[in-house]
Amino acid sequence: MRTENMFKNIKAFVFDVDGVFTDGSVLAMPDGDLLRTFNAKDCFAVRMAVDNGYPVAIITGGCSQSIIQRAISLGVEAKNLYQLSRDKRPDFMRFCTDHGLQPSEVVFVGDDVPDIPALREAGLAVCPSDAVADVKEACNYISPFPGGRGCIRDIVEKVLKMQGRWHFDPTEPISAKYPDHIAELANKTGRNV
Amino acid sequence: MRTENMFKNIKAFVFDVDGVFTDGSVLAMPDGDLLRTFNAKDCFAVRMAVDNGYPVAIITGGCSQSIIQRAISLGVEAKNLYQLSRDKRPDFMRFCTDHGLQPSEVVFVGDDVPDIPALREAGLAVCPSDAVADVKEACNYISPFPGGRGCIRDIVEKVLKMQGRWHFDPTEPISAKYPDHIAELANKTGRNV
Amino acid sequence: MRTENMFKNIKAFVFDVDGVFTDGSVLAMPDGDLLRTFNAKDCFAVRMAVDNGYPVAIITGGCSQSIIQRAISLGVEAKNLYQLSRDKRPDFMRFCTDHGLQPSEVVFVGDDVPDIPALREAGLAVCPSDAVADVKEACNYISPFPGGRGCIRDIVEKVLKMQGRWHFDPTEPISAKYPDHIAELANKTGRNV
Amino acid sequence: MRTENMFKNIKAFVFDVDGVFTDGSVLAMPDGDLLRTFNAKDCFAVRMAVDNGYPVAIITGGCSQSIIQRAISLGVEAKNLYQLSRDKRPDFMRFCTDHGLQPSEVVFVGDDVPDIPALREAGLAVCPSDAVADVKEACNYISPFPGGRGCIRDIVEKVLKMQGRWHFDPTEPISAKYPDHIAELANKTGRNV
Repeated sequence: MRTENMFKNIKAFVFDVDGVFTDGSVLAMPDGDLLRTFNAKDCFAVRMAVDNGYPVAIITGGCSQSIIQRAISLGVEAKNLYQLSRDKRPDFMRFCTDHGLQPSEVVFVGDDVPDIPALREAGLAVCPSDAVADVKEACNYISPFPGGRGCIRDIVEKVLKMQGRWHFDPTEPISAKYPDHIAELANKTGRNV
Repeated sequence: MRTENMFKNIKAFVFDVDGVFTDGSVLAMPDGDLLRTFNAKDCFAVRMAVDNGYPVAIITGGCSQSIIQRAISLGVEAKNLYQLSRDKRPDFMRFCTDHGLQPSEVVFVGDDVPDIPALREAGLAVCPSDAVADVKEACNYISPFPGGRGCIRDIVEKVLKMQGRWHFDPTEPISAKYPDHIAELANKTGRNV
Repeated sequence: MRTENMFKNIKAFVFDVDGVFTDGSVLAMPDGDLLRTFNAKDCFAVRMAVDNGYPVAIITGGCSQSIIQRAISLGVEAKNLYQLSRDKRPDFMRFCTDHGLQPSEVVFVGDDVPDIPALREAGLAVCPSDAVADVKEACNYISPFPGGRGCIRDIVEKVLKMQGRWHFDPTEPISAKYPDHIAELANKTGRNV
Repeated sequence: MRTENMFKNIKAFVFDVDGVFTDGSVLAMPDGDLLRTFNAKDCFAVRMAVDNGYPVAIITGGCSQSIIQRAISLGVEAKNLYQLSRDKRPDFMRFCTDHGLQPSEVVFVGDDVPDIPALREAGLAVCPSDAVADVKEACNYISPFPGGRGCIRDIVEKVLKMQGRWHFDPTEPISAKYPDHIAELANKTGRNV
């Protein structure tokens, strides 16, 4: 199948975190936690996918309260967040089963060796421009953008545009939920969230 | 109208945050808060605009105590800080009304899809060099500098120089206010703020 | 000896931190602590080395609880973490003695002047592409990747591949240990660590 | 005077912070504090200058406990740290007087408009490669390295080498002082600081 046709068949998105949502950088904290830097343009695209009803999953070898909070803020359902996933293939398959999807209908975006088994199952295997060589060989589409700097935006915007779903309506409510303290802060300024 | 003439007519500045004041990076914290990295040269320019009496607004889809503190430190009035602004056009119009300005007298700097409706109203629509394609098409002036790395400095310095207002006098007091704990720290070292 | 043969003889790895595990950036905190940004692809390679039984040491002039935690998470043994090492040569020699290794069987990766005495003892002296000139002159192999952006991945993957040990098995348990609060968080989500 | 001769006459160093010690990035915290990212290679050079007896000052428009701690860790004397310095020229002159130095014997490194009056007094006016145009015009020497990425290392190493003082002896004690909690941590691992 040509890549363009693959884009048209996509019904859901699955993303690795380190090297995909981020440039691979992790800020090491004194308690062992790792903090990550996300990208506003990539996050906007994820929200567009969620608001348009596409199931979105995050499958990561990492584990942090900050990843949980970020996933919630992007509108990713709790059950679709897989942390400490060393063996990503079964997690990917479970996501597909949970949502009644064929793996062939799902995008997986990964950048390093542990992503390869899941990438082999996905209908559309995608990686950022700075993925490791072994991952690039396993992918149908190599984004021209690196991890944390547009590769998620690129693939989501491409799929949604090809399916006629890339429309931003500023007056519509969004699926994303805000943490309590941000909602409180917002309410003080007269915004309802 | 030529861009140069637009620069001469500008009486106020409005900035998006993510991708404009920053390179789009957000550091995700365990409590869901997002921390942002600002740029000293950009911030210096904003203070120059404020000290010269130009109304300055910040209109962002984000919401964080850190944005509030940064806005105060730059001398931006609290009422001119619009957070959780999903629909930026009405917020932009309200800022103009509040200050008795025509939209045609105001710069708006944005980088992503949600900024487009406000950019269409602004007298001078500006974006950083790494804005998304749809935003670039909606702008009069594309800065050669990317977000968080000089695009704000570029547009503010250009406007103020063209209007003969780019003069730094180190002996004049500044409009910016410091948070209490920084003022205390400064007083200990013999500085008055 | 040719570099290729050196790679085949390597039995252990020793890494500097600033400029090797990182790009040299340190985030200065109000209490004087310095936080560092590590790279997921580099860290994956270190875990591969540890899981394959190679002794791994970290010898750094810095000192921070965050380095201790990062070392533990990568599976580096506590006794192989040398902090506040101003004189790196004796620390390097002690590591060799502790593990019954000849210095000629060990890689040392460093980037700045204090690393040179240890680099001179190591069987394979390696530096990132952005090491200082004096260090480059002291090295057998200059990685094409800069510090914090792949130089560790490069050297570890090269050595393990040349020795037929670069195999990722997602079903095997890993040597790395997680901090308690991360293990707790993981257990809540049904993962065992 | 030729630049080379200027280098030979230098007896002290004065550095701006934002855009010189850093790339101009400031991480905005919820309490209004700004955190900065320093560079290990630059910091190593500052310690070399301090350990060789050169007076070193920091003159910054910023103010943060993290700057104070970083200055102490680099061995900069408390009285040579000038924060909230909007008018940098008198602070520079006071540093010279305090140390019995002629301004012509001192390097000043700055990158933005507020540094210009001090740069005009300094014997050697230096800026990073990414300084603003007006600063570059006021300088004798433009480093090929940008702020936060080697410009301080470049100028300090050049001056010390030209004066035959660039020698690292790992067995000598250093002038820098560590914060208490880092000294405690170090002592636990058997290091004396």
